[in-house]
Amino acid sequence: MRREIAEQADVIAGLGADPTQFREAAEEAKARGIRFVVFAGRGTSDNAAVYGEYLATILAGLPAGLAVPSAATLYRAQIDLRDCLVIGVSQSGETPDVAEYVANARQAGAFTVAITNAGDSALGRAADRTLVLGAGQERAVAATKTYTAQLGALALFWGAWVGDQSLLDALREAVPAALATAVRLEERIRRVAALLRDADRLIVTGRGYNFATALEIALKVKETCYVAAMPYSAADLRHGPIALVEPRYPILLLAMAGPTCSGMVELYEELCARSAQVVVVTDTDVDFRAAVETVRLGRVVPEPLSPLVAVVPGQLLALHLSLARGLDPDRPRSLRKITLTR
Amino acid sequence: MRREIAEQADVIAGLGADPTQFREAAEEAKARGIRFVVFAGRGTSDNAAVYGEYLATILAGLPAGLAVPSAATLYRAQIDLRDCLVIGVSQSGETPDVAEYVANARQAGAFTVAITNAGDSALGRAADRTLVLGAGQERAVAATKTYTAQLGALALFWGAWVGDQSLLDALREAVPAALATAVRLEERIRRVAALLRDADRLIVTGRGYNFATALEIALKVKETCYVAAMPYSAADLRHGPIALVEPRYPILLLAMAGPTCSGMVELYEELCARSAQVVVVTDTDVDFRAAVETVRLGRVVPEPLSPLVAVVPGQLLALHLSLARGLDPDRPRSLRKITLTR
Repeated sequence: MRREIAEQADVIAGLGADPTQFREAAEEAKARGIRFVVFAGRGTSDNAAVYGEYLATILAGLPAGLAVPSAATLYRAQIDLRDCLVIGVSQSGETPDVAEYVANARQAGAFTVAITNAGDSALGRAADRTLVLGAGQERAVAATKTYTAQLGALALFWGAWVGDQSLLDALREAVPAALATAVRLEERIRRVAALLRDADRLIVTGRGYNFATALEIALKVKETCYVAAMPYSAADLRHGPIALVEPRYPILLLAMAGPTCSGMVELYEELCARSAQVVVVTDTDVDFRAAVETVRLGRVVPEPLSPLVAVVPGQLLALHLSLARGLDPDRPRSLRKITLTR
Repeated sequence: MRREIAEQADVIAGLGADPTQFREAAEEAKARGIRFVVFAGRGTSDNAAVYGEYLATILAGLPAGLAVPSAATLYRAQIDLRDCLVIGVSQSGETPDVAEYVANARQAGAFTVAITNAGDSALGRAADRTLVLGAGQERAVAATKTYTAQLGALALFWGAWVGDQSLLDALREAVPAALATAVRLEERIRRVAALLRDADRLIVTGRGYNFATALEIALKVKETCYVAAMPYSAADLRHGPIALVEPRYPILLLAMAGPTCSGMVELYEELCARSAQVVVVTDTDVDFRAAVETVRLGRVVPEPLSPLVAVVPGQLLALHLSLARGLDPDRPRSLRKITLTR
């Protein structure tokens, strides 16, 4: 897991080096007159799908949603997917319900795109277009480099869709540089892991593009540390779950530069007022003086790409919290690399 | 909270007695050539929105998704919502980001419907059509009767959309009867609450239509008991979070009749094999002999309506677990009835 976290800079640089497949897929989809986007994924890939949903909505101005796989696989619904783009995301390409959803969607008139690390897979074969991650084999059960590669692929696709050359450039250079810098936070994260060693619960919160980051960090911590880590958007946290927060409640708060930042700072203040134990991950220079730790990402990337970088401290935390608890992050109990759900 | 849980049979009977407003709104929307559906809600209303997403997809065969409110309110995205139906859900009608999302959506070409207990509210005024719940004032901070009323309104709307008279009939008679019967499970739920009194975590799992029920029960338990209650669809639970499940881990599992049942029984067996402490809520006669408790809902309603009934044991559990822990379910700390997020 540690090696694969460190490989992320190279994986993204490799992906960004040649955006041709993403541009071609985006052009083909646009030529089909796409009006609506549906993303399908499970687990980590579902968190990447959430990021895709934000890109499609905010960058491309298209209404987007997450698939209801059981509608197709269990309820056998006939869904009218004309003018829809369906993007299936799966590291292995072998998650049965995602592959089946995409195959059904193609028959129902959707233009279908697969994002996978294994082009020759059930998902790869089911889709009209397959975008291959080229992340190399991922051996750890807890996915890291394939998650950021999925985010990179989604950003390249939607960046090409809107013709935003600055995003494509940043994926080739600024993001790999920021990933390389982020990995050097390991010692600081080890300190955070020591602080949280005995925690049996954790709230992870972010907003906007980084809601996906909160989802993914919470999943990693659950998978490798068996901590009840709960992800919330800042808005959803306020609509009920904030009742959980008592003094010393551990919270990981993502405060990334951009339109969501002031709301995250407000939430940080509210949580500190409740004497929660707040760890902040930020690429801003805001002074979070009441935080127990502030993890500062050294380099700022364009905000839509910040989830590729902001997740790294969370991946490192999952790794070191697992080690601090005497667990083996590479062998989470009860999990296999490919999960067969329908 | 207890009184409002008991009022649900009457509220749904009242709502089902006259489906005119729902039929008219459905007819008006259909005449607009709707192709996609977007739901917007926060907290409990967001859980109702998830139910709406399943109804739209499975019953009406329309691709549907949950709104990304921050796309409109923070990122100021221009979203192309022509041919879209946008349904905003809010008990009070005063959640600013939901009202603002609906107002923006209407300007962007969507046909907009509000589902609220307060027709004369920001949300009610923003939408093309307002469907009023008529649930009476809800005084408990933890919403119960307005949640089931929102489900009822969504079912009446989508039942009218597809012209399913049997659903409309069931909302008038079978569902209120089943709700009245479910409330009588209170003594059994009190026993479950005693069992779980010292739990500091809980997994709630369901699938299909009852994924919304899992979301809502987990939220109620968080709001009134401050327990880290985590909701998962059966499929998502297997993609990572199942690593959390160690012996005695408390789990509330919804196994409702219909296409999702066999998968839920399989999951139940897997969880029992891990020696989890499984409480089952079911309307089937499956023998869950390894469960620590089986809560049997006495009456079967059409599966698409089962979430209106299956949530009741969870509402009662939130109430009695709160009392068993010496808390006041009517006054959750840190929460107000209306949350102002943007």
